Amino acid sequence: MDWQQVFATRNSRMKASEIRELLKLLDQPDIISFAGGIPDPALFPKDDFQAAFSDIFTSDQSDTALQYSVSEGYKPLRDWIAVQMADLGVPCDVDNVLITSGSQQALDYLGKLLISPRDTMLIGWPTYLGALGAFNAYEPTYDKLVPFGNRTASDYAQAATDAGGQVKAAYASVDFANPTGETLDRAARERILALADDLDIAVIEDAAYQALRFDGEAIPPILALEVARKGDIEACRTIYCGSFSKTLAPGLRVGFVVAAKPVIAQMVLLKQASDLHTPTLNQIAVERIVRDGFADQVAKIKKVYGARRDAMLAALEAEMPKDVQWTRPEGGMFVWLTLPDHLDGAALLAQSLESERVAFVPGSAFFADGSGRNSIRLSFSRADEATIAEGIKRLGALLRRTG
Amino acid sequence: MDWQQVFATRNSRMKASEIRELLKLLDQPDIISFAGGIPDPALFPKDDFQAAFSDIFTSDQSDTALQYSVSEGYKPLRDWIAVQMADLGVPCDVDNVLITSGSQQALDYLGKLLISPRDTMLIGWPTYLGALGAFNAYEPTYDKLVPFGNRTASDYAQAATDAGGQVKAAYASVDFANPTGETLDRAARERILALADDLDIAVIEDAAYQALRFDGEAIPPILALEVARKGDIEACRTIYCGSFSKTLAPGLRVGFVVAAKPVIAQMVLLKQASDLHTPTLNQIAVERIVRDGFADQVAKIKKVYGARRDAMLAALEAEMPKDVQWTRPEGGMFVWLTLPDHLDGAALLAQSLESERVAFVPGSAFFADGSGRNSIRLSFSRADEATIAEGIKRLGALLRRTG
Repeated sequence: MDWQQVFATRNSRMKASEIRELLKLLDQPDIISFAGGIPDPALFPKDDFQAAFSDIFTSDQSDTALQYSVSEGYKPLRDWIAVQMADLGVPCDVDNVLITSGSQQALDYLGKLLISPRDTMLIGWPTYLGALGAFNAYEPTYDKLVPFGNRTASDYAQAATDAGGQVKAAYASVDFANPTGETLDRAARERILALADDLDIAVIEDAAYQALRFDGEAIPPILALEVARKGDIEACRTIYCGSFSKTLAPGLRVGFVVAAKPVIAQMVLLKQASDLHTPTLNQIAVERIVRDGFADQVAKIKKVYGARRDAMLAALEAEMPKDVQWTRPEGGMFVWLTLPDHLDGAALLAQSLESERVAFVPGSAFFADGSGRNSIRLSFSRADEATIAEGIKRLGALLRRTG
Repeated sequence: MDWQQVFATRNSRMKASEIRELLKLLDQPDIISFAGGIPDPALFPKDDFQAAFSDIFTSDQSDTALQYSVSEGYKPLRDWIAVQMADLGVPCDVDNVLITSGSQQALDYLGKLLISPRDTMLIGWPTYLGALGAFNAYEPTYDKLVPFGNRTASDYAQAATDAGGQVKAAYASVDFANPTGETLDRAARERILALADDLDIAVIEDAAYQALRFDGEAIPPILALEVARKGDIEACRTIYCGSFSKTLAPGLRVGFVVAAKPVIAQMVLLKQASDLHTPTLNQIAVERIVRDGFADQVAKIKKVYGARRDAMLAALEAEMPKDVQWTRPEGGMFVWLTLPDHLDGAALLAQSLESERVAFVPGSAFFADGSGRNSIRLSFSRADEATIAEGIKRLGALLRRTG
């Protein structure tokens, strides 16, 4: 059978990521990997999970945990999230919260909710690869949100019309973003809001790393800034996406969306039609862990990742040639390096694997148009400080040889 | 904000199901419910789950179970499924298997994979409500696959062209289908295959209830019949969707798809973009349970549901007026009643809740065009035999009064 003749046109946008395929090859034990942006399993609260699952199966919750449940999500977990959001400056109630299977699913649903083919999404340049993957299924056009140029709302609107649709949303990863590690300052957040108001579009705030701030002053979420302006989440256009993947464990696939009720109500229908609900068991386990131990768990991982960030920045300072620049993240998992113009991140990776046994991700993977060839992403989440120092030393030596 | 102006057009097809909303109201303890088609939690293998999760967290699997994993799914579970499929007449290997978050997610992905707006899906009339929900997001046209009329392949193709697209797939729930409880016989399965061959379209075989046969002779899956014809799964157009929701527990959200490798490869990309992977922990727990105890678990639930099916059929025989007909399912969870033409299932439900405190689902919910008003669906999965007898007695009395 010629499957191409029955596949819908959207599938032509769904290609295997070269980067993801490459990352599968990097599990060899002698490689120092700064590639995958994934948590260190040593920091998973395993004892808490063991206790949570044991309690569920020895309590009267076991029937509930194994049964179908509502698409909105487990109410005690949604209640807990609503309280956390109030602490972040977003007073809301349980009906403003939807549980998703990781924040990746929230991005998929937001593509499904908003994008008709040829509509425009405003995104960072570079941006989170998984957002591009999720949105691509709905066949959007992309335009640059960040870095900001001098374009006005009507410039954006005209470009979208020329592309055959309308601007639907601005997507921004706000804190210690994947891939750059950079944080949008308050002025940038206010500017995104003002642009969204002018265009009358949604703002998708990706806050996957929000809890992982090591130092510096926390900046209110875009949604909190908008609530402060407009008085009520129901008047807000910002859709906040959070996750427990970076703080507890990603293998559970539990994330959430916080937004005005008409958005949540429609997303509940998308959830019902696409997988009925996030596993009941996983939601109950997460709620049992966060209600008592979230602050301690976050403090524990911030201490470890913060020390690794320090080690990576110190090593970069000591080892990199003068013509290499890098970001200085205040949290998260990533540092972004800008190499001299004539260097290519993908070619450098091939060399680095061959001669240095050090892995990272070439930066062009994170640009919707494949630009950014002279950049690379380093993750400091998985290696200890001594390994980070050694890996950066090798990378610096390679760059001095090739630069 | 006027959200309608940024919602994609597909959302107009995603309405809250009146039935699902109604079912939320039926949890009152004095109601005898034949409504929800959900498993009896008393049959969940809780001890097995408790042991599985305990083993995971006291073994070296805990890191793996809590970490990100590949979109294809947990390999030992995919291997186990491949062996089961071979037993059903479908020799295949691990790369023919994708793990999904319940079979509902498989239906969503198949809509995403196949349907461009205005393409035609051939479906049962009535059919599974969740399939309509999943497909609706991709804006198809529906045409009747079953019951078979006298239409030829070119009649179907012409109707699809007239609707502005092409026929993409035939969807069939094959064993003890939701909602009718009926099973497609071998001749009907062969006929679907022949039609699909003529149209050069996919066949989506929904086998969610496949393991729940109480009596009668098992009929090979459509995919097995096709492999028998064509010699190899790679030459087959049938995409088989299975689930552990009816046999183990639905709250885990673990299902699977078995198909030719080009289909699985593309669905892996859809999975990666939409939720990365089904929770690692849940897949490992399911594999631990099925590898030793699947046959025993299935035998246990078949015995209980089989006795309930017997009780319902006996009560219908004793209590129903002569002008009511019903199906005699050989497995599954459902019996389908056809009432006299002048009766309306929805009106009957209102009366039944009021005077009899007996709940069921009006049949029109399961027809893409809202027809079938004089039918109702009864589920026998949740009530014990005495309760079934009492509920059917009340319903029979109501029908004699209103008929």
